[in-house]
This record gives sequence, C-alpha cells and structure tokens, in this order.
Amino acid sequence: MALQDHSSSQMTAQDLAQYLAARKAEVEHALELLVPRPDAWPEKLHRAVRHSLFAGGKRLRPILCLAAAEALGGDLEAILPAACGLEMIHTYSLIHDDLPALDNDDLRRGVPTCHVVFGEAMAILAGDALLTHGLGTFGRYPEGERYDGAKLAVVNAVVDAIGTTGMIGGQVADLEAEEISDPTPELVLSIHESKTGRLIRCSLQAGGLLSFAKDAELERLDTYGRAIGLAFQIKDDLLDVEADAATLGKSSGKDAAAGKATFPSVWGLERSREMLAEKIAEAVAAATALPRGGGRLPVLARFVGSRAS
Amino acid sequence: MALQDHSSSQMTAQDLAQYLAARKAEVEHALELLVPRPDAWPEKLHRAVRHSLFAGGKRLRPILCLAAAEALGGDLEAILPAACGLEMIHTYSLIHDDLPALDNDDLRRGVPTCHVVFGEAMAILAGDALLTHGLGTFGRYPEGERYDGAKLAVVNAVVDAIGTTGMIGGQVADLEAEEISDPTPELVLSIHESKTGRLIRCSLQAGGLLSFAKDAELERLDTYGRAIGLAFQIKDDLLDVEADAATLGKSSGKDAAAGKATFPSVWGLERSREMLAEKIAEAVAAATALPRGGGRLPVLARFVGSRAS
Repeated sequence: MALQDHSSSQMTAQDLAQYLAARKAEVEHALELLVPRPDAWPEKLHRAVRHSLFAGGKRLRPILCLAAAEALGGDLEAILPAACGLEMIHTYSLIHDDLPALDNDDLRRGVPTCHVVFGEAMAILAGDALLTHGLGTFGRYPEGERYDGAKLAVVNAVVDAIGTTGMIGGQVADLEAEEISDPTPELVLSIHESKTGRLIRCSLQAGGLLSFAKDAELERLDTYGRAIGLAFQIKDDLLDVEADAATLGKSSGKDAAAGKATFPSVWGLERSREMLAEKIAEAVAAATALPRGGGRLPVLARFVGSRAS
Repeated sequence: MALQDHSSSQMTAQDLAQYLAARKAEVEHALELLVPRPDAWPEKLHRAVRHSLFAGGKRLRPILCLAAAEALGGDLEAILPAACGLEMIHTYSLIHDDLPALDNDDLRRGVPTCHVVFGEAMAILAGDALLTHGLGTFGRYPEGERYDGAKLAVVNAVVDAIGTTGMIGGQVADLEAEEISDPTPELVLSIHESKTGRLIRCSLQAGGLLSFAKDAELERLDTYGRAIGLAFQIKDDLLDVEADAATLGKSSGKDAAAGKATFPSVWGLERSREMLAEKIAEAVAAATALPRGGGRLPVLARFVGSRAS
C-alpha cells in the first residue's frame, strides 16, 4: 500500500487532524491484513482478538514509530507492519489489565472489555495471542536481509520494554500500590514510566532502528520518547479529573474513586499541568535537533499535551 | 559453561538416565542465569516465575533442541540459552492453562500451581513474563552476527508454533471440546497436534536452524518432531489411565473424570499402545537418516515411549 506523503512540518490544527486520521487509517488497514479473519479457525479467539484490536484506539504507538521513521528517512511502507506490532502489544496489555483478577474493568474506549463479551478464558488467550503475534511481527517485518540486524535489535528493545522490569513490572507495582495508603511521588512516577512510558519510548526506538538511525539520533529519539511517554500519562490523569465521561469513553474520576495514585492526586492539579508543559517542551527540543527538524514529531508532542480524549 | 560430551549413540538404560540428568542440570543451570533472581524487583513476580519454572519439569523441549543440534554438529554451548527459551514458553503455557478460568488445576508436577500460591493476577503476569522473555531469548541468543538469520527463523518458527493456529488455537479447541459429548478421533488428534505437538516439533527445528541444518535435514527433524510430539501425548494419556498417582505427581484418571477426550477414550487402550509404537518407530527412522545416525535422537524417541512419568 502507498503511504500518504506528509512532507511539511508546518501544520495547522486541521492539517494535524487530517494527518492523524490518515495515519490511523493506514495502521488499521495494515492491522486488518496482519490479523487472521474472524472466520479463520479458531473463530471465537480471532473474534475476541479483533474485538479489542479494533475498538477505536488512537494508534499513538504506531503513529509515533512511523513519525520517527519519517524524520530519519526510513522506508515507511516497509516499516508499517512492525509499527502495527506495537499496537498489538499495547492491546494485549489492555486486555490482561482489564481482567477481573487485575483491574476488573468492564468498559474500555466506550466498548465492553474482552472478557465481558467473550469470557475470561478467551480474554486471557486473546491477550496471549496478541503478545505472541505482536512480538512475531518484529521478527518478520520489514522483509529483506538488510533488516536482519535491525529487526533483532527491535525484538530485544521491545522485550526489555514490556518485560518484568518494564511494562509487566509496572503492572505489578500498580497492583501493589493499591494497598499503599500514601504512595510517594517517586513511586507514582516509576509506575507510570514502566507501565506506560517504556512501550511509548520503545515505539520511537523501533522507528529509528528500522531507519538505520545513528546512535546520537537514537538517543534524541529516546529523550523525546521518555518525555512524551510521561506527558501522555500526566495528560491521561488530568483528563480523568477534568473530562466529561462521554468524551472520554470511560467513567471519569474513576482513578480517584479507586484510590489510584495519579499525578494530580500526588502533585496537585497546578503542578501536574506545569510538569505536562515541561515534558512537551523537552520532547519538542529533542525532536527539533533531529534531521528534518524532527518531521512531525514536534507537532505530535504538542498534540499529546492538548488532546481532549 | 562447558556442556558434557555424549558422543556414543549406543546407550544402556543407565547411560540414558545419566545423559538426561546431565542435560537437565545444564538446562536448569542456564535457566538460573537467564531468569532474574527472586530478590530482583518486582520480587513477587520473579518468585512466581521461578516457582513454576523450577517445579521439576523433565526439560524435554530443551533436551530435544540440544539433541538435534548435537546430531547436526551445532555449537551446544551457544545454543543452550535459546533451548531454555523453549522451556520458558512451555512453562507460560502451563501457568495460563492451570488458571481458574481455564483448566482450574491446583496441582502440577506434585506442586501447588502458580495461582494457588501467588494469586490469579500474579499468575497471569508470570505467564506473560515467561512468554515475553521466552521469545526474547530467541532474539538474543546465540550471540554473534552469523546467527542473525537463524535467530529470526527461530523466532518466526516459534511464533507460528505457539500462535493462534498452533498452541493457543489448540487450547481454545480443547476448551470447546469439553462441551462436545462425543468428540471425533480427528478432533482429538488435531487438538493434541496443536496444543502439545507444535512446540515439540519446533524445539527440533530450533536446534536444526541454529546448527545451520540443510533443508532436507530440517525436514527429517520435522518428521521426527511430529512423530515424537504425538507419541509424547499418547504416552501421557496412557500414563493417566495406567500410572499410580504418586509416580505421576498429579491425580491419575483425572482426564476421564473431567470428561476430556484422550487417545485411550477415543481409540481404546490397545490401539493407543499400537499407535505409540508406530510413532516411536517413525521417529527413530527419521532420526537415523540424519548425520551421526541422529546422535541421541533415536534413544530419546524410545525413552518417550517407555517413560514411567
């Protein structure tokens, strides 16, 4: 498929909305082709996988991966399937987090969660399937021997990001923090960095590695990824306090009701908003030092800080 | 670490027992080094992972992988960590299968299952961790650029073997078969082939790929792996009917009580024993056509048919 060209880094709000919509459509089209059809054996499992994968995500991780590749002159069409692997892994983490034994969430993105529709057994297996095929995507794409070393580097980076000292560790710490009456700011920060931040950082790294980025460029992408990952989570917590439930597609104020440690609950609203602005500025600075002024990365950082849902 | 040399293919029962014990010790030593220590953050998760990983498995999959590599002149020390990845993935599948929402088993290898000791949430995450780091092992080992292509081939082979049309699909079919009052022999066969057989076949392929085996050799390994995978499952079902519960470390006759479709329940005891002998003979024939008369592979096939637990 031919990916749309987005060569100017000067964008109006409308341009950005169009860019995001176009990228989202490209990612969803590629996901359609990568995931077995709902009538392929075993049907119920594939329906469960698709239920969660096509429940209306923003596709932020693949979009960031492709934006990094775009800034570094990578082959976007070749990289697109690997970018989709990041979305599969993100979706696996949501399905397992929502299970009754973990966060016990019935609603996600305004849609009943996987175990509510397909039962707990199928939700566990659908998560396992998305983790398996998500990681498998990095072993298979982009095709061609010249990518062999970069593909292995991506597999290793993703495994580190989502393993026991990354995303899974953050989920454990999050569960354990629910039993702590007064979590420290440092604990809240470290949970978010591992639970959400690591995979976002890794999405940028994947885009860079598959574009054969230099070490200094990978470092700038990592600074950007670290800042934007944190900004994304701060904004998420702020939206939970501020937003209208209908806009958000999930119950607002739910974190506070569940006694969850969030940025606003630990730092207060005002300081959280300041931190958000600081992180966006950090991300923009790191991105503009990249080739092509970082392409779409600076404008994407500003979007993370201003999004309404 | 220096792996023991086992150069003769003529083995007495005592030699075989020593060989299996030595390989098991080598695999467990390597697993010790590959998996974070129980006091590494997050401690509870790492203790849950280790509880199941060191609960006394036979280490059949890594042993088969190493035996394939041995027959084909591979570098066993280099391949050992990848062989351990197969055991991590096998253990993930056991932890998730035992969960209350799936098979709801309290006992495995004579030891309380992961969720019984650590709770459901930790068992789900421990399984996720073993799947993640198991696949990660194939991306990382053996070290050295000359293995890049082979490592990617192993990642792809394992993902296919354990994905939605492999092990996970078999688990779905197994759950669905419980609701079928009279499963056909073909269904029982296909469930076992995907649920247990595919990962065993893949263990042989991994050993071959990482030893730079020729296509014809990989095909022979696959014939061997397919036959031995099925033999292993027939023997497992026969042991469930025949064996003393204490020897087996789990309740005997449990499959029949659960109304599970097994080889003896579908084909009868006598025909199941014949099929077992046929599969062992097939495996031995395929292995002896390999270099070095297949090394230890023929004697390992006979072991699968005669094991007492």
